[in-house]
Amino acid sequence: MRKFILLFQCQDRKGIVAKISDFILKTGGNIITADQHSTDPEGGYFFIRVEFVLDNDQHSRQSLVLAFKPVAQEFSASWNLYDRSEILRMGIFVSEPDHCLVDLLYLWNAGELKVKIPFVLSNCEKHRKLVTGYNLPFYYVPADKDNRREPELLSYALGATDFLVLARYMLVLSPEFLQKYNKDIINIHHGFLPSFKGVDPYGQALKKGVKVIGSTVHFVNNQLDEGPIIAQEVEYVSHKDNRQDLIRKGKHAEKRALAHALSSYIDYRIIKHENKTIVF
Amino acid sequence: MRKFILLFQCQDRKGIVAKISDFILKTGGNIITADQHSTDPEGGYFFIRVEFVLDNDQHSRQSLVLAFKPVAQEFSASWNLYDRSEILRMGIFVSEPDHCLVDLLYLWNAGELKVKIPFVLSNCEKHRKLVTGYNLPFYYVPADKDNRREPELLSYALGATDFLVLARYMLVLSPEFLQKYNKDIINIHHGFLPSFKGVDPYGQALKKGVKVIGSTVHFVNNQLDEGPIIAQEVEYVSHKDNRQDLIRKGKHAEKRALAHALSSYIDYRIIKHENKTIVF
Amino acid sequence: MRKFILLFQCQDRKGIVAKISDFILKTGGNIITADQHSTDPEGGYFFIRVEFVLDNDQHSRQSLVLAFKPVAQEFSASWNLYDRSEILRMGIFVSEPDHCLVDLLYLWNAGELKVKIPFVLSNCEKHRKLVTGYNLPFYYVPADKDNRREPELLSYALGATDFLVLARYMLVLSPEFLQKYNKDIINIHHGFLPSFKGVDPYGQALKKGVKVIGSTVHFVNNQLDEGPIIAQEVEYVSHKDNRQDLIRKGKHAEKRALAHALSSYIDYRIIKHENKTIVF
Amino acid sequence: MRKFILLFQCQDRKGIVAKISDFILKTGGNIITADQHSTDPEGGYFFIRVEFVLDNDQHSRQSLVLAFKPVAQEFSASWNLYDRSEILRMGIFVSEPDHCLVDLLYLWNAGELKVKIPFVLSNCEKHRKLVTGYNLPFYYVPADKDNRREPELLSYALGATDFLVLARYMLVLSPEFLQKYNKDIINIHHGFLPSFKGVDPYGQALKKGVKVIGSTVHFVNNQLDEGPIIAQEVEYVSHKDNRQDLIRKGKHAEKRALAHALSSYIDYRIIKHENKTIVF
Repeated sequence: MRKFILLFQCQDRKGIVAKISDFILKTGGNIITADQHSTDPEGGYFFIRVEFVLDNDQHSRQSLVLAFKPVAQEFSASWNLYDRSEILRMGIFVSEPDHCLVDLLYLWNAGELKVKIPFVLSNCEKHRKLVTGYNLPFYYVPADKDNRREPELLSYALGATDFLVLARYMLVLSPEFLQKYNKDIINIHHGFLPSFKGVDPYGQALKKGVKVIGSTVHFVNNQLDEGPIIAQEVEYVSHKDNRQDLIRKGKHAEKRALAHALSSYIDYRIIKHENKTIVF
Repeated sequence: MRKFILLFQCQDRKGIVAKISDFILKTGGNIITADQHSTDPEGGYFFIRVEFVLDNDQHSRQSLVLAFKPVAQEFSASWNLYDRSEILRMGIFVSEPDHCLVDLLYLWNAGELKVKIPFVLSNCEKHRKLVTGYNLPFYYVPADKDNRREPELLSYALGATDFLVLARYMLVLSPEFLQKYNKDIINIHHGFLPSFKGVDPYGQALKKGVKVIGSTVHFVNNQLDEGPIIAQEVEYVSHKDNRQDLIRKGKHAEKRALAHALSSYIDYRIIKHENKTIVF
Repeated sequence: MRKFILLFQCQDRKGIVAKISDFILKTGGNIITADQHSTDPEGGYFFIRVEFVLDNDQHSRQSLVLAFKPVAQEFSASWNLYDRSEILRMGIFVSEPDHCLVDLLYLWNAGELKVKIPFVLSNCEKHRKLVTGYNLPFYYVPADKDNRREPELLSYALGATDFLVLARYMLVLSPEFLQKYNKDIINIHHGFLPSFKGVDPYGQALKKGVKVIGSTVHFVNNQLDEGPIIAQEVEYVSHKDNRQDLIRKGKHAEKRALAHALSSYIDYRIIKHENKTIVF
Repeated sequence: MRKFILLFQCQDRKGIVAKISDFILKTGGNIITADQHSTDPEGGYFFIRVEFVLDNDQHSRQSLVLAFKPVAQEFSASWNLYDRSEILRMGIFVSEPDHCLVDLLYLWNAGELKVKIPFVLSNCEKHRKLVTGYNLPFYYVPADKDNRREPELLSYALGATDFLVLARYMLVLSPEFLQKYNKDIINIHHGFLPSFKGVDPYGQALKKGVKVIGSTVHFVNNQLDEGPIIAQEVEYVSHKDNRQDLIRKGKHAEKRALAHALSSYIDYRIIKHENKTIVF
C-alpha cells in the first residue's frame, strides 16, 4: 500500500471536501486521516491535509498530480501532493551549541525523524567526531560575522537538500542566500518570540526577570526572528536561576520544540498563511 | 445560517468521507470543520465529526436525519446528528466542595459554557445562596452514605436534563440509578486516574510522595472511577506541600479539566469507544 | 503560639544567618522555615525570609522590631518584620472582565486568600451584585480614559488598604497616583510580558501567530507593564483558536498567575530587587 | 575558596539553625545558600541543607566532620558533610532503549552533570560504540531474565561507584544485590507511578485511555517501582497517539525527569524520609 499526502488551500466555498474525497475514492484510495481548517465559515480561507492510501499500482505521484489538477483548478487552489515513500533531505547548519544537533542525530538514528541528512555543516570544527560517528558527511565552513561564506554554504545546500534546519546556527543568512536557496529554512530561536529577538535571549530574559523562558521554532524569512512560528515550548524559572541555569533549562525547551516542529514538517502538517502557520 | 454536527463511526473502508461530504453538498451544506480518526488504516474502526452549515431552510434536523439514514446504513454506522441551535440541559450534582460549581456557574453566566442549567442539586444546603443568586433552581437533597435518596435524585434529573455533571458529588451512584437515568454522566475525580481511586485521593498522593498531582474527568459507569477518561490536568507539587496545599493546588487542575471536558462534550467532540474516548 | 516573618536584605558577608538565628533563639523563638538567596557568593547581595514562632508573650511586633534593630544596623540591612496575625487589607480595582474578581472573591471566601477586602472598586456597575453578595463594599467610580477620577480612587484606597490589586483594571494609573498611594500595587496583565504590552494582548498574540499565550503578574511602576514580574503562567494554543478562544484559554492562566502571586505576596515571600523579584 | 554541603535532619526543636550557623561562622565559613523544611512546627521532623564556603585552608572535610560531631550529637541528628570538590562516581546500567543514555552522556560531556562515569554496563552490545566514543569503559554483560548475572554486575559496581543509575535497565535487581551494593540506586520508570508499574507502562496507559502520560525517577528499594519518588514529568497525549507515539513522547518526559533528579542528587539536594523525598 502506498501513502500520499495532499496539502490544499483555497478560498472557502461549498463542496471542496466532497470533490477531493470523491477524487480519492475514484482513484481507488482510502482516506486515512484528514484535517481541515477554515479561517471563517463565511468568506474565509480553507485549508486541508488529506492522507490516503492507494491499494493499486495504477498511479505514480506524477500521474496523480495530473489527474488532480482539474479539481484544484476548479477551486483556484494552491496545493501539493506528496508521496510518503519519498524521504526529504534535511541539511543541518549548526554553530557551537550542540544540544539540538545531538538530539536531531539521535532521533534520526532511532528512526523517529524520517529524513535523509545529506550533511551537517558547521563553523565549529569540534562537531566532526559526533557527525562522522554517525557516518554522515561533515562540512567545516569557518564562517563568521565578517565573512559568512554564503556562496560556500549555498554550494553545499542547494542541490543536496529539500530544506535546511538551523539547529542553533548563529549567523544570520542574507536575503540573497534566502532568495537563491528558495526552499524552506527552519530555525530554532532560544527565546520566547516575539520577546527576546536577536543575540543572547537568555541574558535578556535574565535581565528582565521573567518567570518563564521559552524557545521558538520558525521559518526563516528576511526579517530577523520574524518568520512564521511553528512551535513554542516553555520552562518555568525562578530568581535562583542564573544565566547558566537558563541556558541549561532552555535546552529542554529547544529540543522539544525543534523535534516537534520537524516532525510536523516532514509529515507535511504545516501550511504557511499570512506570516502564520497552520500546524495540523 | 444553521449549523449541524454529525458524529459517525463505523468499520473503516473506502469512500466514507466521499459519501458523507457528497451528502452534505447535495443538501446545500458547507463543511466548516471535520475531524476524523481511524484506529488502523487496515481493518480499523473509523470515526468522524463533521460540522456544517446549511444556507437554506429546506431541512429540519429530523428531515436531515431521515435523508442521511440510507448513507449511514450503507456503512452499518453508529451516528448522531445534532442541531447546534438546540442547547443541552446540564444538571449539576455537587457536595460540599464548591470550587467546580463556582467555576461552572461563572462560565455559564459568561456565555463560555453554552448549556441550560435546569437545576443545581446538592446534599449541602450552603450552596443555595450562590445558585439562587444566578436565578437557578437549587434542590437540597440530604443524601448521605446511609441513604443516597436516589429515587429523589432521579425524579429531578430524569426528565429535565440531557446529561449530568458530578461537580464533586461525593456519593457513588448505584448501577440502578445509571440504568434508569440512561444518559451521560460526567464526573470530576480529584486524582490522577488510574492512581488514587476512591476517597481522599490527595491524602493518598501525599502519603505516596508523588511530585505531580492531577485530576481526571471521565464518564461514569458501573465501576468506581473506571469510566472512559475525557480529560486530565496536572499540577507540580513538592515536599513543602501539605494536604491543604495539595487540595488548593489541585483545584486549579480540577477546574481546568472539567471546563475543558464539558466544553468538548457540549460541542459534540467526544466519542466513546471501548472504554476510551476520542476527543476531537 | 505567635508567628512572625522577617524579610531582610543586605550586602552579603559572613555571619548573617548566625546573627539572625541567634537573635531568634535568644528571643525564645523557633525557626519554622527559612529561605535565602545570594546573587553571588562573592560580593553579592543577600536576601533572607525567616518564619518563626514565639512560645511566650514577652514580645509584641514592636518590641521585636526594637530588639532586632541593632542586628540589622550591623549589616546595614533593609528589613521588615511582620506579625502573622495581622491580616493585610487588599483593595481591588476591576473593570469589565470579571473572571479574576470572581476567582479572588471565591478564594477569599474559601479562606485560601487570607486578606481583608475593604472594598471592590469598579468603573463597571454590573459587578455590584457579585460583590455585595459577599457582603463586601462596592464602589462604583465611572472612570474612563478622559477622566480617570484618580482623586476619588485615592480617597477610597489610601487609608483603607495595605496594597491594591488591579484585577483587570483597564485604566493606567498616573505617576501622581502611584506617588501619593505609595504602597504596593499588583497588576495582572493578560499577555506574556515583555511581549504584548498595552492594549489587546490577545489580539496581538493572534496576529503574531504565537503557539503559547501567557499572563503576567507584576508590580506597577511608572512605566506601562514594566514593573517587576512576580509570576507568569502559559497556555498552549493553535491555529484553531480565534480571538475569543485565546481570551477564554487565557483566563485560566490569568487566574492561576494572580492567585499564585497574591498568595506569595500576603505570605511575605516577595522581595523586590533591581526591577526584578525574589519569590521565596 | 572551598565549598561544603551539610545535610542534616533531626527532631525539630529550638536553636538548630542558630547552632549550625554559629558553627559555620566560627569555622570561618560563609553560608551561600540554605534550605530547610519541617514536617510540623510542633513535634515535627526538621531537615536542612546548608552550602557554605571556607576562605581558609585550616579544615579538610574530615576535620570539619570531627568539629561538627558534637553539634550534631546535641540534636541526635542524622547528617552528612560533603566536599564539593569531590566528584561522585556514577555507574550506568542500561538495556536496549538508549535515549536516556544518550542524554546522560551528552550532559556529562557538556559539563552539565558533574560526575565521574566509571563505566556504562549493558546487556545490549550495541551501545558500545556510543560509550567508547566518549572514551568511557563499556561492559557488556548478557544478563537476561533467566540469568541476571548479579555477581558480575556487583563486581563492576561495588568498588568503582558511589551510586548507580538504571537508565532504562529492564531487569529487576534482587534484594541480595541491593543489600550487597548498599548504596543509592536511582531508576527511571517510564510510567506515572503509582500507576502503571512493571512491564510496558506505555501499553498499559494506552489501554487505559489516559490523556496524560508520565515518567518517574525514584530510588530503588525491595519493592518493584515502590521506592521514594524523586521527580516526575508528564506529557499530554490524545486518542491519535498509538503505542509508538506514547513511547516517543514519553522519552521527553523521561529525559527531563532523569536529568532533573540526577542534578538534584549530585548537588546533595535530596533527603529520604519515610519512603518519600525532600528535594531542596
